[in-house]
Amino acid sequence: MARFDTVSFLSDYGTTDEFAGVITAVIRDLAPHVNVVDITHGIAPFDITAGALALARAVSYLPTGVVLAVVEPISTRPRVAIEVAGGVFVGPDNGLLAPAVAIAGGAQRAVTLTNTDYHLTQDGPLAAGRDIYAAAAAHLCNGVPLAELGDEIDPGLLLPGTIPLPRDDEGTLIADVLWVDRFGNIQLNLSGDDLAVLGTDELVITYDDPIAPNGHAVRRLRRVDAVADIAEGEVGLVLDSAGLMSIVINRRSAADEWGLAVGDQISIAISD
Amino acid sequence: MARFDTVSFLSDYGTTDEFAGVITAVIRDLAPHVNVVDITHGIAPFDITAGALALARAVSYLPTGVVLAVVEPISTRPRVAIEVAGGVFVGPDNGLLAPAVAIAGGAQRAVTLTNTDYHLTQDGPLAAGRDIYAAAAAHLCNGVPLAELGDEIDPGLLLPGTIPLPRDDEGTLIADVLWVDRFGNIQLNLSGDDLAVLGTDELVITYDDPIAPNGHAVRRLRRVDAVADIAEGEVGLVLDSAGLMSIVINRRSAADEWGLAVGDQISIAISD
Amino acid sequence: MARFDTVSFLSDYGTTDEFAGVITAVIRDLAPHVNVVDITHGIAPFDITAGALALARAVSYLPTGVVLAVVEPISTRPRVAIEVAGGVFVGPDNGLLAPAVAIAGGAQRAVTLTNTDYHLTQDGPLAAGRDIYAAAAAHLCNGVPLAELGDEIDPGLLLPGTIPLPRDDEGTLIADVLWVDRFGNIQLNLSGDDLAVLGTDELVITYDDPIAPNGHAVRRLRRVDAVADIAEGEVGLVLDSAGLMSIVINRRSAADEWGLAVGDQISIAISD
Repeated sequence: MARFDTVSFLSDYGTTDEFAGVITAVIRDLAPHVNVVDITHGIAPFDITAGALALARAVSYLPTGVVLAVVEPISTRPRVAIEVAGGVFVGPDNGLLAPAVAIAGGAQRAVTLTNTDYHLTQDGPLAAGRDIYAAAAAHLCNGVPLAELGDEIDPGLLLPGTIPLPRDDEGTLIADVLWVDRFGNIQLNLSGDDLAVLGTDELVITYDDPIAPNGHAVRRLRRVDAVADIAEGEVGLVLDSAGLMSIVINRRSAADEWGLAVGDQISIAISD
Repeated sequence: MARFDTVSFLSDYGTTDEFAGVITAVIRDLAPHVNVVDITHGIAPFDITAGALALARAVSYLPTGVVLAVVEPISTRPRVAIEVAGGVFVGPDNGLLAPAVAIAGGAQRAVTLTNTDYHLTQDGPLAAGRDIYAAAAAHLCNGVPLAELGDEIDPGLLLPGTIPLPRDDEGTLIADVLWVDRFGNIQLNLSGDDLAVLGTDELVITYDDPIAPNGHAVRRLRRVDAVADIAEGEVGLVLDSAGLMSIVINRRSAADEWGLAVGDQISIAISD
Repeated sequence: MARFDTVSFLSDYGTTDEFAGVITAVIRDLAPHVNVVDITHGIAPFDITAGALALARAVSYLPTGVVLAVVEPISTRPRVAIEVAGGVFVGPDNGLLAPAVAIAGGAQRAVTLTNTDYHLTQDGPLAAGRDIYAAAAAHLCNGVPLAELGDEIDPGLLLPGTIPLPRDDEGTLIADVLWVDRFGNIQLNLSGDDLAVLGTDELVITYDDPIAPNGHAVRRLRRVDAVADIAEGEVGLVLDSAGLMSIVINRRSAADEWGLAVGDQISIAISD
């Protein structure tokens, strides 16, 4: 009867509080055969975009099963389960799931999690993560059909994600910092093809910097083929393992060194 | 022969050091069928009360099995295993386990973990978490009877927890901040019934604030039925998913905004 | 056919990014019978020595199986799998694995992970942790022979670890701070025997301290048999559960109190 044996779980709960642990406990209590894989719980509180990006980077590597993702500021958005080719996504319909659902081949069916028979019933108010999402994930693993969990909705009406796109401004690329990882590598919303339009590997990058004399920083940067081509202390622009261009400094934090953070905008042009 | 297949594990070990990972390894080495659910290891070092509160909030959601909890400043308190209706608690008898044991229906039997046959024997001094508690948890899962682990003690002599109670001071409620979660929500030691004695939802809250002109802050606060009733940026007092009243600001940290922290005391009265 | 059912996993990935979670997902996708035990992912970025020490402290407690360890600054060091009596280590040959391999009885055979048939193949550049190490760990658990993963190399040529040794300077021991744990305990590279040469338990410790009048701090310290012998607020030098001497203050952080950090050097002499 069991349909799935893995729940891959991402949230903004952190691990200092017991939220994420309790959700794992609820899943294993309802579906003891299930193994919960923690993708991360370190998404910044309420940061739907950061959660959507992390889930999108991870989704191709997750086992068949349920993907449970919870980054949910107070809102009136519905709570949903979305069937894709390789499993079911469970979470809020607030844009968090959309990019990963698209990478997974797109939504085939979707329901709102409105059937209270499949909620955890406790005294007091519901905690959505624990009482609705975790319970839905466990029941899906146990073989409960998607349509049992609530009302079917048109997958075309799910909220899309809002990942910024780069722009080409008369030969200058305008890109955004999507992610700064633990090592200080700076991921841009640029593919290798986006960058190739500039036609050279010797680049100059400009961005706002309140400390610089004229209010913006100008830095030279070389595109390299592999991180191994960046000498110790040198900077390189390299295709990262998620398929996007990243600014990397060998053994140092590029984000610290250059003063860049998520959401910052940079201009990239040919170095003269 | 196996009796339990889950160990739910809470500690103040953090996850930067390898302490919690080694305990999981020891459990799975001795009892390979067991799955360890990490409730949290983010309890502040030596903070028995915070650990007891987190365990109490989580305990109703844990699968049948062993609950292993370790927050243990150096002391002469005994190390114990406590049988309840749905499993066995393992940890120090220093108040950490008491509230959760009570919620789980109370202690039926208890032993001190003094039988060294069930300790992990290594050269050098014992690490209690690794060599006594983890080993006891694994042996219990393997079906070793409670009484084998050490000397039976009277459950009535276990140290009670010390969670502060609110007071009613001539129509003013004196409450304590029990917990500030990752989102900055402020949990008070007040149930909905405690608050109902004031007979209104329009409240005024007073607490010490060294920065305020007269040394204390006075703030208006409205009790609401659900977090969804709190507009963006607004403050509400709401019954939280643990059954206690919490101060919540929609999408912001109430604790940061109001300058309140765990252990602070506040007065709640009818707003005039 | 399955050979191992546990992968014990240590890294400097942290848990804020999804790196460690994705590696767990990859292992369970390729080898669903495997349980991943997270030793820690809190090693400071690129800190090979700290990773090697944590792995060395943990290794005796890990279940038979694969030990996956990744702390890998950009370099040209090979990526390897090393067979020992109780399992296989997978990681970079940069000194990270060496102390643990020695504790586990020494390398019996080793290969470089050069056979791309056992890499995860994706578009874009490889992420070594995800596409080489995690895949190798999973394949080993599935029974793939070590020699299939790449070219055999002479285990004698693996890079040794570089853990500092204490020195005896005319009756004064010169020791190093190896580790400061979450509780502020200060672990030194001194065994009980190293210390015994001083012939007394009443000691005086000297170390550089820019704030002190003459530029160094001088502190008295007593060797004790057990942490339980250290009264609240008192300082003791005690054999810790890893078999090394640690400076411990009961319920306080010795590292904060004394201003010592990893890598600091101290002199220990007989108190007169």
